[in-house]
Amino acid sequence: MQTMTVLPQRPHAAVFCLLLYCLNGCLSIPDPRQREALMQLEASMQTGGRVVLTDAEQRLDALLFKMKQEEIIKADFPPAMHFFRARSLINNSPIFSLLQKMPKGGALHVHDLSMVNAEWLVKNVTYRPNCYMCCTDNHSIRFIFSSRVPKALARCSAWTLLENLRAKMVNPTDLDNSIMGNLTLYTDQDPETVYPSQDVVWSRFEQAFLAAWGLVTYAPVFRDYYYEGLTQFYMDNIMYLELRALLPEIYELDGSTHDTVWTLKTYQEVTRRFTAEHPDFFGARIIFTVNRGVNMSVMIGVVEKAMKLKRDFPDIMAGFDLVGREDSGRPLWYFREALSMPVERGVTLPFFFHAGETDLEGTEVDQNLLDAILLNTSRIGHGFALLRHPVAKDMSKKRGVAVEVCPISNQVLKLVKDLRNHPAAALMSENQPVVISSDDPAMFGSSGLSHDFYETFVGFGGISSHLGSLKELAMNSIRYSSLSPKQQEKALALWQRRWDKFVSENAP
Amino acid sequence: MQTMTVLPQRPHAAVFCLLLYCLNGCLSIPDPRQREALMQLEASMQTGGRVVLTDAEQRLDALLFKMKQEEIIKADFPPAMHFFRARSLINNSPIFSLLQKMPKGGALHVHDLSMVNAEWLVKNVTYRPNCYMCCTDNHSIRFIFSSRVPKALARCSAWTLLENLRAKMVNPTDLDNSIMGNLTLYTDQDPETVYPSQDVVWSRFEQAFLAAWGLVTYAPVFRDYYYEGLTQFYMDNIMYLELRALLPEIYELDGSTHDTVWTLKTYQEVTRRFTAEHPDFFGARIIFTVNRGVNMSVMIGVVEKAMKLKRDFPDIMAGFDLVGREDSGRPLWYFREALSMPVERGVTLPFFFHAGETDLEGTEVDQNLLDAILLNTSRIGHGFALLRHPVAKDMSKKRGVAVEVCPISNQVLKLVKDLRNHPAAALMSENQPVVISSDDPAMFGSSGLSHDFYETFVGFGGISSHLGSLKELAMNSIRYSSLSPKQQEKALALWQRRWDKFVSENAP
Repeated sequence: MQTMTVLPQRPHAAVFCLLLYCLNGCLSIPDPRQREALMQLEASMQTGGRVVLTDAEQRLDALLFKMKQEEIIKADFPPAMHFFRARSLINNSPIFSLLQKMPKGGALHVHDLSMVNAEWLVKNVTYRPNCYMCCTDNHSIRFIFSSRVPKALARCSAWTLLENLRAKMVNPTDLDNSIMGNLTLYTDQDPETVYPSQDVVWSRFEQAFLAAWGLVTYAPVFRDYYYEGLTQFYMDNIMYLELRALLPEIYELDGSTHDTVWTLKTYQEVTRRFTAEHPDFFGARIIFTVNRGVNMSVMIGVVEKAMKLKRDFPDIMAGFDLVGREDSGRPLWYFREALSMPVERGVTLPFFFHAGETDLEGTEVDQNLLDAILLNTSRIGHGFALLRHPVAKDMSKKRGVAVEVCPISNQVLKLVKDLRNHPAAALMSENQPVVISSDDPAMFGSSGLSHDFYETFVGFGGISSHLGSLKELAMNSIRYSSLSPKQQEKALALWQRRWDKFVSENAP
Repeated sequence: MQTMTVLPQRPHAAVFCLLLYCLNGCLSIPDPRQREALMQLEASMQTGGRVVLTDAEQRLDALLFKMKQEEIIKADFPPAMHFFRARSLINNSPIFSLLQKMPKGGALHVHDLSMVNAEWLVKNVTYRPNCYMCCTDNHSIRFIFSSRVPKALARCSAWTLLENLRAKMVNPTDLDNSIMGNLTLYTDQDPETVYPSQDVVWSRFEQAFLAAWGLVTYAPVFRDYYYEGLTQFYMDNIMYLELRALLPEIYELDGSTHDTVWTLKTYQEVTRRFTAEHPDFFGARIIFTVNRGVNMSVMIGVVEKAMKLKRDFPDIMAGFDLVGREDSGRPLWYFREALSMPVERGVTLPFFFHAGETDLEGTEVDQNLLDAILLNTSRIGHGFALLRHPVAKDMSKKRGVAVEVCPISNQVLKLVKDLRNHPAAALMSENQPVVISSDDPAMFGSSGLSHDFYETFVGFGGISSHLGSLKELAMNSIRYSSLSPKQQEKALALWQRRWDKFVSENAP
């Protein structure tokens, strides 16, 4: 009796004849060996499909498989639900507990003003002295720290010192909860009712950023916020960060301000301090960003500034990107003159463009994916529309341009409802280079990366994804980072030590 | 000054060098000609991307483009909404009016008991004499025609003669509406509330089939129902049909029954009569189906019967398929012994398997796609999960196994919410062979094919799809039909005459 063919590590060659044979028509009875070979070929093609697991990893993988089977038969399947409803289910999942402990490598797509959860902003920052608040006429709030009563803001109520307001209230918790609700999109109510459309959710999203702005850009808070952000990611077992940062002017209590260079230097100093205090943290780099709503002359100035910063601070500066809602902003091609300047001048300025964070097809904005690649982007932010652009998809695969997939962000911002239908499920089935990130965890009420890893592992992958998928995703986050090859090697070695420890502690 | 390169019909060769150059890294400033070439390459890769349009077609295409731009900027974008809410918007769309008039070729995925709208069943069939109704204990209804009071049905109320019931009612319209509601999934209420889960919607779906069963399987109704079905498809400018039919026993008023052969012969007779009366209708063929819930010995008997029917009625019999919810039925591989019989005996029995109508990944059911191909299926019903199976996808493309895409069905049965995220959008971007069909139009309250064509054209395609896409989809429905090459040629010639007339009547 013939035994079942065990596929070698790279199964292509092994099943090639069987596959070819079948492509020409399977007119005989299906051969179970051929079927098995094709199934294994498909399994080997997915992200992590060729990762060879150690004995201990195989035991952990078997445990994960069992957990996932139990998770999938439950009535409420979290990846099919809105994250705001699914979060408590996920938090109670044994898979999630494991993912929290797992060393996930780097978080490569996170924005500066949404690193730290809203609770910390309220409980820590707004309780500091000299914190003023006003209410805008569109029901949002603004903050400022000031040594005297600040100048009135247009379309905002009079400034109130929070200390005084709290002193007058019977139950300050109500106020705190109300402030917190303004600093995040997360809600206990029905998210479909609260956010009926992309326009509504984006408008609330932008208001929440403006609400956080005055708190985070106050110099003493700015340092603490970033340190706390690193801490929260570190606690989620993330060892490296690439932060998209607007590098805004940072203000002091007397109203004086610091410039972009000061802001970047502060990121550098805090990163160094944090890394020194946490030797198993590898570091952080900054992707300087500007809103895509600016005009061409502003963009030219910003790109010039970016080139200068990259030259003067090559260690902390990773590169450049445009932020803001793609559907309502200017497309990349509009800015081609500005974005071509670095190449024209022979200056290095890596790009990390958001592109394809849209469900409109064939519009000018929808060309961003191809244009990002033509502008030689190093990675693609979101790439939600990539499946509809086979040429861009092919080029990004061949050139190793990884897609930064942010599942919860795409769901909350209403690009997709059931995360099993997220295009990354298809991308990962053919090992398109992807990394998993969280975009704006504070806005969505998610953790560093663990919630997004849960949606990826259980939602995109179904029963098919395994420990090898997780391992490759973690390694991708270093391989596709902006770190130099030498730094990547060092980071991978550090990650490997943490990974081995994780496996040995958790494998049954 | 150099003029813009006009791409030849097959642009691959023309842009190959430019593309290759770019795959190796675009380190210079993006070249607008290269960008244009890549955009055109991508456009040429989609379904219909290489169709050459006549002058008149180009004028009609320009009109369609204008209509679509107006449609897309509206606040409510129908493909993003549940079809039950979108239907009235679609019905008022000028694009929809054009699609109704457009000769769409064949409908290749339609089920026998859901051809004719529920209104016709209520207003015509239930008003015939001798029609009894009872109410089941799970709030559905059953019907039977009988010359005497029928034998009581388990778990159902006593039979009532509808004539008597109607005579007693002040307003029989209420009764009619209530009956109608039981024969379709369509509802004016919030569909998300009425059908909160796949389990609920499938259960209601199955009950509605059972409700229609007693009406449609009554011999005089059976003939009229099928004739009316052909009429409704014909009125929607469909010229050919492949009907998935259970070929049930058909009963007479005295309770006597006709066998499968009689049922198939009746389909043949009615088709011949209808085609004779409508010379621009090409005909219909039957795909014999059985529920995937049966056991192996029943399946063996059914496949034997199918082989016999195919031998005895080669003209009307197209082939064989399994029906019912994939997620709760037995996978194809379970039945491999039965399904291999035709090949083992050297008998021709084409398969048209449903496969991949699921959002679970990696389960046994999820292997149906690969197994359908290994069992040499001629087409794939739904193939919703195909994007997650790169090997199956590749094989289906190389072997010309078309996917029967049923957008509204997939949305109503809760596989996808926003139809822009339907996997067929990606499949069509790389011209995977697809045909568009309506599955169970009566259940969903949709027309023959026009509503599904609307969702495809406006939803999947966005701004990118055009008249060439529609033309290729219509031609695909003949090219991937079960008709012989000679018949296809004839059908295509007939379609082309109707198409030319449509274009000349509607081009500005």
